[in-house]
Amino acid sequence: MASIGTTMMLGRETKSFGTLGIKSKPFHPPPHGGVLLLQANFRSASMKGSQTTLNTIGEKQLKLLGGRESMVAEEFVLGKVEKDSRIFSQNFTIRSYDMGPNHTATVETLMNLLQETALNHLRNMGLLKEGLGSTPEMSARNLIWVLSKVHVVVDHYPTWSDDVRVETWIIRSGRNSLAIEWVIYDSWTEQILTQASSMFVMMNKETRKLSEWPEAVRREIEPQYIDRPPLLDKDSSRLRKLDHNKMEYVRTGLTPRWNDLDINQHVNNVKYVAALLESVPISFLENHELSAFTVEYRKECAMDDVVQSLTSFCHETIDQCFHLLRSEGGFVVARGRTNWRPKQEKHKA
Amino acid sequence: MASIGTTMMLGRETKSFGTLGIKSKPFHPPPHGGVLLLQANFRSASMKGSQTTLNTIGEKQLKLLGGRESMVAEEFVLGKVEKDSRIFSQNFTIRSYDMGPNHTATVETLMNLLQETALNHLRNMGLLKEGLGSTPEMSARNLIWVLSKVHVVVDHYPTWSDDVRVETWIIRSGRNSLAIEWVIYDSWTEQILTQASSMFVMMNKETRKLSEWPEAVRREIEPQYIDRPPLLDKDSSRLRKLDHNKMEYVRTGLTPRWNDLDINQHVNNVKYVAALLESVPISFLENHELSAFTVEYRKECAMDDVVQSLTSFCHETIDQCFHLLRSEGGFVVARGRTNWRPKQEKHKA
Repeated sequence: MASIGTTMMLGRETKSFGTLGIKSKPFHPPPHGGVLLLQANFRSASMKGSQTTLNTIGEKQLKLLGGRESMVAEEFVLGKVEKDSRIFSQNFTIRSYDMGPNHTATVETLMNLLQETALNHLRNMGLLKEGLGSTPEMSARNLIWVLSKVHVVVDHYPTWSDDVRVETWIIRSGRNSLAIEWVIYDSWTEQILTQASSMFVMMNKETRKLSEWPEAVRREIEPQYIDRPPLLDKDSSRLRKLDHNKMEYVRTGLTPRWNDLDINQHVNNVKYVAALLESVPISFLENHELSAFTVEYRKECAMDDVVQSLTSFCHETIDQCFHLLRSEGGFVVARGRTNWRPKQEKHKA
Repeated sequence: MASIGTTMMLGRETKSFGTLGIKSKPFHPPPHGGVLLLQANFRSASMKGSQTTLNTIGEKQLKLLGGRESMVAEEFVLGKVEKDSRIFSQNFTIRSYDMGPNHTATVETLMNLLQETALNHLRNMGLLKEGLGSTPEMSARNLIWVLSKVHVVVDHYPTWSDDVRVETWIIRSGRNSLAIEWVIYDSWTEQILTQASSMFVMMNKETRKLSEWPEAVRREIEPQYIDRPPLLDKDSSRLRKLDHNKMEYVRTGLTPRWNDLDINQHVNNVKYVAALLESVPISFLENHELSAFTVEYRKECAMDDVVQSLTSFCHETIDQCFHLLRSEGGFVVARGRTNWRPKQEKHKA
């Protein structure tokens, strides 16, 4: 389901960002008997459709272990398999380049980890097809996922060398939307660092129109649902309409860079979040960190689009901002709301 | 040695980019008995100064294994320790967001992996101090490293889910410069994917002047040298002077984004490479991939600098370009040379 990383909901004007090519790598044991650690911790092996993927990964890992298929190896290299949890879990170590000016992982890094685990989860369930990023039944109907909204709450930011565990699952949402949720934990303390939820809708790749879910697709996906209330309060993520003429801070002339493009040669949705924040005054960024944000994706930004980032502070509370990303042609690319808290002293420059 | 990731050589006009805060994390075994895999493969445990670091990491990992200190665990979680090799080796799995429009890891990703392993190597040797990123003797003299040049040859780009192993070491270079080299291997096939070398010089953090190496610093660093010829041909990385008035392609009005800043609130050196490439015509990027590049860092780009990226094609060979990154105020930020090859059909959009 490439769309998680690469496609955005564009309202009625939705345009696809294409699909993700997933390659199936043949198994070649390394001749050097080398050390390889896959960090995925597959809890979802009991799910239908996941068996092939899991077996492949298991086989690959056990071969890497040179036949020593011990419990230790299985538990720590393949990860724990917990039956029927339908929660996919993956460990990451924060790298030096994951950090930004706050001395912590950036919001982009956190969103990248969400993307990575959601994609691996879908692959693990057998719902990620080569070249299309959709379920088999979606693929047969030329349907793809598009991201419409993301809502992230960050309690604490990890920093370099921190070990984090990302858990992700799917909950029942509207009849025609898919809700993916995540929690990022500190692997050592089990402290919750970040909670996030995203909403995806389905659209026809050719007509660019939103689509209801065909029954066959519903049958594929519904068994993956976890029956639990939403992780984050839905109301709190509702965005109000913004008048671009009344925004306080404007940064004009932003254009996508070649390096903003993902494998579909479209601007990755994570980059839109960064672009939304471009109009926040630096003096504010220097002393505050994001505690939560909600972004609604409205329309794709093409390589030759010039966009404006607009920000206004909420007049009721100084720690909330509203944001608009708008093409100079006049259409809304994305809009968002951010909450902030004073930066910890040690994270200041 | 923060400077590897965050500081650049600025010639006689050199300005520091500050230092990297390295925290020392106390050991807290996870209460859940969770799964954690550190991907570092420490080959350099026999080096002086490395013992403390290695023991700490080893202890941490073995605790994570719940006391089952089996050979399997040690070999695959801690990595192999090869005595006296002085080669530090770390494994990575390429993540979905490491990829760019070519369906492969981007050049930025490769440079990030180089940075990460060099920093971990230095930390492993005990040469990375909290808050300064220098050796103890450098720290006592207010000296830091600055990156002056990087030369990278990419034979093959890895893609999503590929396992790569990065090996890095230090070779003897000029009397007052440090040469770090890297090879990135495909962990499965042992194929060499990328070779790279970088040159660092030492400067005084306060006076911003380049410094000769004090003898005490020399005594710290020289035992870490590997006695071998340079990995890459030095002549091939020499850059000629460029006249900005004669460059063929210009992209003006580039400004650093907040997200380009690293933990020192300075533009990370990896971002300069991306900026140098901004003036390469998109029609060329769509059909070619980088096979090699050399970048010389000349002067820091501040947050409020507006820079121009300039590119010219070599008239002798169509697959070589020259690049200049220049402030609109007139100073040279960086210059570079790139080699290209036609993109593989499957990597085209």
